[in-house]
Amino acid sequence: MSHFADRLTAAVVRCRTPVMVGLDPRAESLPRGLLAEDRRHDPTAVADAFARFSCGVIDAVRDLVPVVKPQAAFFEQCGPAGMTALGRVIDYARQCGLLVVLDGKRNDIGTTATAYAEAYLGAPPESPWGADALTVSPYLGDDSLTPFVDVARQRGAGLFVLVKTSNPGGRMLQDLVIDGRPLYRVVGDYVEQLAAASSGTSGYGAVGAVVGATYPEQAAELRAAMPHTWFLVPGFGAQGGTARDVAAAFDPSGRGAIVNNSRGIIFAHSAKAYKERFGDARWQAAVEAATRDMIAQLAADSPAGRL
Amino acid sequence: MSHFADRLTAAVVRCRTPVMVGLDPRAESLPRGLLAEDRRHDPTAVADAFARFSCGVIDAVRDLVPVVKPQAAFFEQCGPAGMTALGRVIDYARQCGLLVVLDGKRNDIGTTATAYAEAYLGAPPESPWGADALTVSPYLGDDSLTPFVDVARQRGAGLFVLVKTSNPGGRMLQDLVIDGRPLYRVVGDYVEQLAAASSGTSGYGAVGAVVGATYPEQAAELRAAMPHTWFLVPGFGAQGGTARDVAAAFDPSGRGAIVNNSRGIIFAHSAKAYKERFGDARWQAAVEAATRDMIAQLAADSPAGRL
Repeated sequence: MSHFADRLTAAVVRCRTPVMVGLDPRAESLPRGLLAEDRRHDPTAVADAFARFSCGVIDAVRDLVPVVKPQAAFFEQCGPAGMTALGRVIDYARQCGLLVVLDGKRNDIGTTATAYAEAYLGAPPESPWGADALTVSPYLGDDSLTPFVDVARQRGAGLFVLVKTSNPGGRMLQDLVIDGRPLYRVVGDYVEQLAAASSGTSGYGAVGAVVGATYPEQAAELRAAMPHTWFLVPGFGAQGGTARDVAAAFDPSGRGAIVNNSRGIIFAHSAKAYKERFGDARWQAAVEAATRDMIAQLAADSPAGRL
Repeated sequence: MSHFADRLTAAVVRCRTPVMVGLDPRAESLPRGLLAEDRRHDPTAVADAFARFSCGVIDAVRDLVPVVKPQAAFFEQCGPAGMTALGRVIDYARQCGLLVVLDGKRNDIGTTATAYAEAYLGAPPESPWGADALTVSPYLGDDSLTPFVDVARQRGAGLFVLVKTSNPGGRMLQDLVIDGRPLYRVVGDYVEQLAAASSGTSGYGAVGAVVGATYPEQAAELRAAMPHTWFLVPGFGAQGGTARDVAAAFDPSGRGAIVNNSRGIIFAHSAKAYKERFGDARWQAAVEAATRDMIAQLAADSPAGRL
């Protein structure tokens, strides 16, 4: 595969939106009819429903957005059957021409980090999962990140390293100040080095950063400090981030950031704004409408409108 | 299940050793005969070999040690089939009466953290995987750890939070100094709070810490600062840690630390010390001999001898 950042840039420009749809299936939130009430505690039945639901979401958004982000945790919650379902979902998204960022927040040291990277990154059969990129955690330091970078570069895949996360508790460590510089900047500066050293023709690197929508000031600071780094921006919608909040994460041409929405899109059938119009029966139409609305919001209130 | 730290204490005392065997299968290191040369790139064949090998290791050590630690990364490397193999290995270890710490270094925010915790922690069918404890990463902060603690306490399970890891690069973030205190101490002090608030009759809490064998001075510092916290000590053997190096991780009665060895035990058949005596054909005897040697080393050169 060609360079990840080049593929991401091309996909965002082609779709004229940086919206990323998060695939976070939850048994209690599925549209009626996808999972019988009495099967909610059967991991195999839940896993199968998660796969059918996620593929249904993909069908609804495949012509609208460049990228989806399956959340590994919800599939892992169904045991081994859930991992088979995750494999199906990634395969289907690839077949539909979507980029896939697996949200696994993995990391480990040395050859174990290499094993995670080889597991998830790249096209099948080189990778048995086939994700285009993976989220990774930085606490283990530089020698835990470089094995991921090496595999990503070999395989035309990408990484998104946690830098400044969207949750309130993220401040506990990430905002600690070392010699006048918060920890998220220490991590951000290292990620930018990795990105600059791995940049493709788009000017962006194979290594990106997770930067929450809930901290717009820090997003602006990091955007200025990290010109080669794609941002994956969580926290839009359910967590409170708005199109104006995420505006600072983009470069002036509207590139450099993908903005994730999970619950606000995939469970639109039960949200006030869409429930009456669509309801459970037309849940895929609700997903499509919510996606179109988010695309319009970002186009109106952020540099994504320049794409 | 009863309190995790009480079960761990009882198991360590019963076996009179804190040795933990790390199940880190690698296709290129398996004893001859477990995986045909021409199947090394077939994820299903590799996954099946990993399950048979890991269960064979369990058979060799089940009467000697209290706890095993499967490394999720190597199973994930085989795709969905690898996860089915991981499930088999955890099941078998449980059936053999061993405690299981899954090394997954997971984390996420809010209800996603809860999903990981509910996935892995506790006995089946409550958890589809059935681990007694899970390793977790702290970068996302306090509100990412408390969901794990809540589920662990409800289910009699445990956690090991990365505090001071065994790899050289761990220093990059973990040794940064904030107001005179290194980051690993900030994390360690928070983990100790969680441990003290969840302590069982043994005096230790449901929340433990990963503290590498390769930093004996820091282990001593953390042991003194974290009296309610079990330490999971990686880095013994292949990474250079010795029985003397890990001595500081124990409390005076020889409790409070489990010391992991992966490659030094599971691949003993190809190590100089055991190869001639056992070789590939008698690889399980090599595993047993290496385990007995490590038990003896810790008994001679650390407080584990007082168990």
